[in-house]
Amino acid sequence: MFYLIGLGLGDPKDITVKGLEIVKKCDRVYLEAYTSILTCGAEELEKFYDRKLIIADRDLVEQGADDILADSGEKDVALLVVGDPFGATTHTDLILRAKEKGIKFQVVHNTSILNAVGCCGLQLYSFGETVSIPYWTETWQPDSFFDKIANNYKNQLHTLCLLDIKVKEPTLESLTRKKREYMPPKFMTVSEAAKQLLQIVENKKSEELIIGEKVMCIGLARVGSETQQIITCNLREMSEVDLGGPLHSLIVVGPTLHPLEVEYLQQFSLKKS
Amino acid sequence: MFYLIGLGLGDPKDITVKGLEIVKKCDRVYLEAYTSILTCGAEELEKFYDRKLIIADRDLVEQGADDILADSGEKDVALLVVGDPFGATTHTDLILRAKEKGIKFQVVHNTSILNAVGCCGLQLYSFGETVSIPYWTETWQPDSFFDKIANNYKNQLHTLCLLDIKVKEPTLESLTRKKREYMPPKFMTVSEAAKQLLQIVENKKSEELIIGEKVMCIGLARVGSETQQIITCNLREMSEVDLGGPLHSLIVVGPTLHPLEVEYLQQFSLKKS
Repeated sequence: MFYLIGLGLGDPKDITVKGLEIVKKCDRVYLEAYTSILTCGAEELEKFYDRKLIIADRDLVEQGADDILADSGEKDVALLVVGDPFGATTHTDLILRAKEKGIKFQVVHNTSILNAVGCCGLQLYSFGETVSIPYWTETWQPDSFFDKIANNYKNQLHTLCLLDIKVKEPTLESLTRKKREYMPPKFMTVSEAAKQLLQIVENKKSEELIIGEKVMCIGLARVGSETQQIITCNLREMSEVDLGGPLHSLIVVGPTLHPLEVEYLQQFSLKKS
Repeated sequence: MFYLIGLGLGDPKDITVKGLEIVKKCDRVYLEAYTSILTCGAEELEKFYDRKLIIADRDLVEQGADDILADSGEKDVALLVVGDPFGATTHTDLILRAKEKGIKFQVVHNTSILNAVGCCGLQLYSFGETVSIPYWTETWQPDSFFDKIANNYKNQLHTLCLLDIKVKEPTLESLTRKKREYMPPKFMTVSEAAKQLLQIVENKKSEELIIGEKVMCIGLARVGSETQQIITCNLREMSEVDLGGPLHSLIVVGPTLHPLEVEYLQQFSLKKS
């Protein structure tokens, strides 16, 4: 049997009782470690499960999927995923491969940032399409996510922006060599995301924009963990906010708020803190 | 301390390890039982926790909030919520009241239908605004959710439709009496939801509609439980589909699909089953 188990967002105890029972009985347990990270590290998980984990980086999950599934027909193999297993398409792909091979599988759901983001008090039903904000490079600066945010705003909806993470990315120079070298991991902060958005506003200044530097934003860090932080201010102010370690998410708030949303958000105001 | 604990969607073991530890140590534990239901019943939960639960219906949560919070300053009190605690605004309201009273609180997240719906293989980032489809009465037949679905479709997005549930609704006749009488609980099925959508299509037939009876839909039942069922067919066909017991959800699929979405959805085709 092949198990895909969601770990939630915070610490080792955010796994479900069902998920933990499966982890305990499995022959092999992989930890997917490149689409997202838990606020705690892998060592803490190993200690809590009292067993070794195999760290699954992008190469292993995307090219080595057959190794992961190899003997899942006879043995019990689990892949642990931060958040919910269906948060990344690569996991859907794994299930399809298991099906092709006639391997039975089970999914154990858990919270993901898509619903945990409700902790800021905004109603989950008032969010539009979720967008991802990628790290810009000198030569690659896409801005299509800005139009989606603007479109949500026009439709009276909030936008959850998932911020890029780079884990075990090969350096450009090493791509041509036999021995890969990797860049240090990096995780986009709300301030970095806000700066890229401000740059887009600046680039588009000749157009008539629906949102600008005064649009209300919410910065969230380490949602679901004990050190969770939430702050609300405008986009310009957000570019100077420091919420500490990863992971961060950014919300661009819609133009109209429900009175309960207003009341709840007040506690997170930058001016108050 | 006041705890709001998500239970996930399926059976008692879908609670997190953290959540279970809190349930075990609390002085009083309420089970919120009107915005959603678990596939298993309250008795099964009590057996698993080895403790009594206080069933919290709408009256208790909305009018009796002070009773729930009464001594949460000194004692440990938990409210268990199906899915994630922030799925319903009434829970956000409870936290605000706790804050007003200076009562400390902690939220334990869990999966909700908003991310578990990924089990059908559609990418969660390709969903637009979530809508709720309410039970129509003879005199009250709102259809604003149809416009939201059509708007999502126009923006190349899928729509998750949450289907109405009626639990402990007083009968119209008893509203004027001292002694309340309640209607039997009812839970909207995918077929009932599809029929209401077809009716709206029929009513609007003079208009140029973006979606009609041929639009592709996905019906989901008891997501996250062992008896989970998923079926995909067009809206007309969905009005005849029977997915068994509650809870059901309906997805109206956007106009374009990613190849991986197409491949994953094939297994759920009505024609195949």
